[in-house]
Amino acid sequence: MIEPLRLWLPQAIEFGLGKTDTVWRHLGEYRRVFVLCDGSVLPFGQRLSQEAETRGLEARLSADVVPEPTFEALDDVLQQAQSFSPEAIIGIGGGSAMDLAKLIAVLLPGTQKATDLVGIDKVKGRAARLITMSTTAGTGSEVTPIAVLTDSEEKLKKGVVSRHLVPDAAIVDPQLTISLPPAVTAATGLDALTHCIEAYTNRFAHPLVDLWALEGVRLILANLETAVACGTRAEARVAMSMGSLCGGLCLGPVNTAAVHAMAYPLGGEYEISHGVANALLLPFVMQFNLPACTEKYARIATLAGIQEDSPPEIVARKGIMRIRELQERCGIPTNLRQLSIPQEAIHSMAESCLKVKRLMDNNPRPVTLDDAISIYRQAYEGTLEV
Amino acid sequence: MIEPLRLWLPQAIEFGLGKTDTVWRHLGEYRRVFVLCDGSVLPFGQRLSQEAETRGLEARLSADVVPEPTFEALDDVLQQAQSFSPEAIIGIGGGSAMDLAKLIAVLLPGTQKATDLVGIDKVKGRAARLITMSTTAGTGSEVTPIAVLTDSEEKLKKGVVSRHLVPDAAIVDPQLTISLPPAVTAATGLDALTHCIEAYTNRFAHPLVDLWALEGVRLILANLETAVACGTRAEARVAMSMGSLCGGLCLGPVNTAAVHAMAYPLGGEYEISHGVANALLLPFVMQFNLPACTEKYARIATLAGIQEDSPPEIVARKGIMRIRELQERCGIPTNLRQLSIPQEAIHSMAESCLKVKRLMDNNPRPVTLDDAISIYRQAYEGTLEV
Repeated sequence: MIEPLRLWLPQAIEFGLGKTDTVWRHLGEYRRVFVLCDGSVLPFGQRLSQEAETRGLEARLSADVVPEPTFEALDDVLQQAQSFSPEAIIGIGGGSAMDLAKLIAVLLPGTQKATDLVGIDKVKGRAARLITMSTTAGTGSEVTPIAVLTDSEEKLKKGVVSRHLVPDAAIVDPQLTISLPPAVTAATGLDALTHCIEAYTNRFAHPLVDLWALEGVRLILANLETAVACGTRAEARVAMSMGSLCGGLCLGPVNTAAVHAMAYPLGGEYEISHGVANALLLPFVMQFNLPACTEKYARIATLAGIQEDSPPEIVARKGIMRIRELQERCGIPTNLRQLSIPQEAIHSMAESCLKVKRLMDNNPRPVTLDDAISIYRQAYEGTLEV
Repeated sequence: MIEPLRLWLPQAIEFGLGKTDTVWRHLGEYRRVFVLCDGSVLPFGQRLSQEAETRGLEARLSADVVPEPTFEALDDVLQQAQSFSPEAIIGIGGGSAMDLAKLIAVLLPGTQKATDLVGIDKVKGRAARLITMSTTAGTGSEVTPIAVLTDSEEKLKKGVVSRHLVPDAAIVDPQLTISLPPAVTAATGLDALTHCIEAYTNRFAHPLVDLWALEGVRLILANLETAVACGTRAEARVAMSMGSLCGGLCLGPVNTAAVHAMAYPLGGEYEISHGVANALLLPFVMQFNLPACTEKYARIATLAGIQEDSPPEIVARKGIMRIRELQERCGIPTNLRQLSIPQEAIHSMAESCLKVKRLMDNNPRPVTLDDAISIYRQAYEGTLEV
């Protein structure tokens, strides 16, 4: 029996090369526009703001986006936005810029504080039109009801989940990803792959969401290496953007699991980028989850080009190794030692990741403290025994 | 290279048994509710209206929905709605009820006339919250930017396509389909199958939309016969509702093709229900389209359980025959003669269907007047020569 499902979706999704121009259509009648963009795409943000003014709109641009933003970083940029009183917010960038834009759009009126929003359905409403433009392939945040902030005191990432965070329009123009450096392409691409794998193998997986998850896995496995090695290949960039969009569409209804929960302390305590943390942990968590989702991992393996000529467990193991090889070929660190994480941190990280119950509860195999310690240890050494 | 795509989507899709109760959540703060329902689900519409009043809302119920509604029928129910000045419209039913609800929601302010809306992007805005609840599996109209009206003078169906017709929330509760009689289950189910097949084989097919199209084909082929023969089997009903939702999701971005265009005159001139008209014509148009989409029809055939042990053309032909058999087993008329369509009507119907350029342009094989005559003739005789 197909289980019930709730989808919160953007009213419009614009996908494809050249689609940034559709932003004007989606702004509609809104005249005062706050544009928040990653520093790495500042020239694009500037061009957009200038064009807004040419079109008779009032635009205010901010590029004050820091990676893995804290509550304090949000406050800074929120104040900039509040002093301008925009009717519309455009968030341009990777997850950090888009998440901040989403949070600003709901915090603008000043009736709620950011810390009040943490958790599920705590947001009371939204006062501004919200448009996201993704510049990585990637986060998928352009279509999700989720924004993540770093709690610098607790050294942990915290999620805000609300339908009010879903943008009115999500614009995914792969052209914006063409100039991404290989390391960013690799880390964000493997993050997107993780979204798809963790959605498909999720305890709350759903057949309608599986369609996106499997298509995302297929596209990313087939195109990531080319996008990393030869970033100007539009075809690979377009396919990666579609894979990332598919991953993003999975995040609202099903979301991620242990890889993301275990990546949070790496980001919160050691400022490892979200993409790298997920990319590094993915094969180790897959190894741990294998007994709980052998058939599904075997299906993923076939999408990685593994022949189905052996029992599912063997096929699944080959798939995990293929993902590990992809990770290596893309230049992602293969162990936590390389990231200068101290071995002594493992215990506290394991305690910390278990607090991310929202995601841990989704994992196909329950993760105990000992399990988490063991997975981090393997990741520390880089030993994959599949 | 993956082509650009624009999706207009409901902000919320609620799918699953028991989901009708979510309607209150999606009404939000709106207090005056106009409920438009099919006569066949009047008791449900009454319960919903009563519950609205128990909750302190003001509700007005109308069951004045006729099948294949004309512009005049729309005017009648629009006047009822305008006299009540609702803040929200709930459309409950098959395509006719939901399409009328969608049109009322945009026509409420009286600034546009229904005839002004025909075509693409002619609607200027929407003044009321709009919620759809589908009671067939089926039309898919609950999620589409499309509404269809019959022009009783020109004896042709006319489409209104606009993002403003996309509901705020679409509720797909298969429970509402449990009591559908077998003939309605069959006709609406084959209509949904047609949506999926015409989207997948569309000239403007897109890989993201193909995911829905193929899943819809798979679910409907596997469950329609059970749903027709034993309507209380919840599992089959749930699967059919999901298949229909998948078909609906295809209609906005890609839409249908020659089957639907050729069905329009049957509905407009001879009042054959939309479902029966599509169901009857489907295998004949597939036969005609075969040379233009052999591989895709072969893929559809494999979803119908045909082995891939022959060349694609043979597999594809077997698939068409399988769909024809399904149509027969579901009790759908297998030729136009059975529907009392006069043979002399073929020429004018052929001229008429070619006017539906919006859909004919989507067809994988161009349809000339002679082609249309020949397809109608085969459908008249019921001769399928695959």
